[in-house]
Amino acid sequence: MATVVTGAGGFVGRELVRQLLAAGHSVTATDSAAHAIPAGARVVAGDLGDAAVRAEALEGCTALVHLATVPGGAAEADPTLSRRINLDASYDLMCEAAALHPGLRVVFASSIAVFGEAWPARVDDRTPTSPKLVYGGHKAMIEQAVALFSNRGAIDGVSLRLPGVLARPRAPSGMKSAFLSELFHALRAGEAFTCPVSAEGTIWAQSVRCAVRNLAYALTVDAGVLPRTRALTLPALRVSVGDLVGEVARQCRASPSLVTYVPDPALEAGFAAQPPLSTPAADRAGFAHDGSLAALVENALVTLDSG
Amino acid sequence: MATVVTGAGGFVGRELVRQLLAAGHSVTATDSAAHAIPAGARVVAGDLGDAAVRAEALEGCTALVHLATVPGGAAEADPTLSRRINLDASYDLMCEAAALHPGLRVVFASSIAVFGEAWPARVDDRTPTSPKLVYGGHKAMIEQAVALFSNRGAIDGVSLRLPGVLARPRAPSGMKSAFLSELFHALRAGEAFTCPVSAEGTIWAQSVRCAVRNLAYALTVDAGVLPRTRALTLPALRVSVGDLVGEVARQCRASPSLVTYVPDPALEAGFAAQPPLSTPAADRAGFAHDGSLAALVENALVTLDSG
Repeated sequence: MATVVTGAGGFVGRELVRQLLAAGHSVTATDSAAHAIPAGARVVAGDLGDAAVRAEALEGCTALVHLATVPGGAAEADPTLSRRINLDASYDLMCEAAALHPGLRVVFASSIAVFGEAWPARVDDRTPTSPKLVYGGHKAMIEQAVALFSNRGAIDGVSLRLPGVLARPRAPSGMKSAFLSELFHALRAGEAFTCPVSAEGTIWAQSVRCAVRNLAYALTVDAGVLPRTRALTLPALRVSVGDLVGEVARQCRASPSLVTYVPDPALEAGFAAQPPLSTPAADRAGFAHDGSLAALVENALVTLDSG
Repeated sequence: MATVVTGAGGFVGRELVRQLLAAGHSVTATDSAAHAIPAGARVVAGDLGDAAVRAEALEGCTALVHLATVPGGAAEADPTLSRRINLDASYDLMCEAAALHPGLRVVFASSIAVFGEAWPARVDDRTPTSPKLVYGGHKAMIEQAVALFSNRGAIDGVSLRLPGVLARPRAPSGMKSAFLSELFHALRAGEAFTCPVSAEGTIWAQSVRCAVRNLAYALTVDAGVLPRTRALTLPALRVSVGDLVGEVARQCRASPSLVTYVPDPALEAGFAAQPPLSTPAADRAGFAHDGSLAALVENALVTLDSG
């Protein structure tokens, strides 16, 4: 399989490229931060808003995973940039992929940000999208485009709504949910951490290892098992922030008392008030979460340890 | 109320401008076909893809009804044009409206084309969108943008999914569903008509008078009664094409045998296979269909008679 990965220099992208290479894919990897792309991939350096970069990336591919994105916090700070990359370039990429390789399997990394903040009592496969962040709005718009192009046979698309992915490396990510990863780094280093959401806050999470497994699985999943929207909310563990802290502390042999909670109501509403979740469509199609909080934390720590 | 109507030279737009003027609105009307705009409105002639046209239209407004669109058939023939007007200019218009008049009531004319063709057994307020026509795809994308901008308080938006609107004037409309209107014209003129869908085909319909009443009502409906998506599928009568022919023939004193049925499977799948529909959210919010087939046909004929 000749697979293109956009955003391959990012936290999820790097891990995906490694796994695809290990599984025998021929990988073309694009990113403006090309230095971060793992060895072994054909590298196309540049901005996905640039048509020449897209054309070079799409050359000869048999599948596409579109991860490249202006993340949540950065999109809020610059909605015009988000429109250029998260909306326009994403739409262009699908048009061009469809023209070059009609029916191409395209896996689009969407986000639970499509649901916005006014959470219903529980979320399931019939919960409508109603984004509040610019990032989530543009993801929701491209989900509709994935359905459109797929219904026309122009592409064979799958939108995967990723939950919180743990744990990011210790670097500015532009993601508003980055505090969840910072918590891992602090406890691993035995440092004090001020958590900006309460211990009772609830999140939906997957380890990066699990997220990458789901993205890779989406490359070959039978279109017949996908819903007519082509959009799947991925299974995720729903855990309280306090339980997550407890488990990370346990596995890192740190004291959970290193963490003090000083909740920011806006952050809590946006990122730690996630209600019970059921994802029967994704479950039936063969996608999965980490299985347990202990496994999630273990998987997340392994990836941090391996760099 | 100082209301802007885009696409005011179109079939629905003209009737809306007339009704708003009659109700005492100060109306600014934009269209590239400015000659078709009814007298009494401030006219802004030009293409909505032109930023200067949008700026002139938005000056001093207190509400906006966005009807301007590249219709279904024309969008299929030229997806790039549809993207320019139905997607990009619509998004620009909302950004600009939000910047000039934060919290502006924006009524976006969406379409049942957001549902695509693979109809479920019945459609209700939880049926997800899955467009197949380019037109429906871009409408579905802008619905997400309306939700995004509304959730942020940038606009106070409402997306209304219009069903088949009857009856259009006898002119090329670029709408794939135009055959439904042609049926009215033929029977009114006592002419033979070859219907491209079967008598058993089922459609969702409103008269233009009813559609305009719903659009005008959306200008003042309380945001508190709207769903979190801000999108409402409008109530519509579900009628068989044969019953519609029978009623039009009765009211026009023509013979229903003027109509012969030569179904085109693609057209039937797209436009005359509409399943039972329930629209509780719109019903509760105070939107309505014509009430009966007889009233729908009467309302449609009155508008045709008044030109």
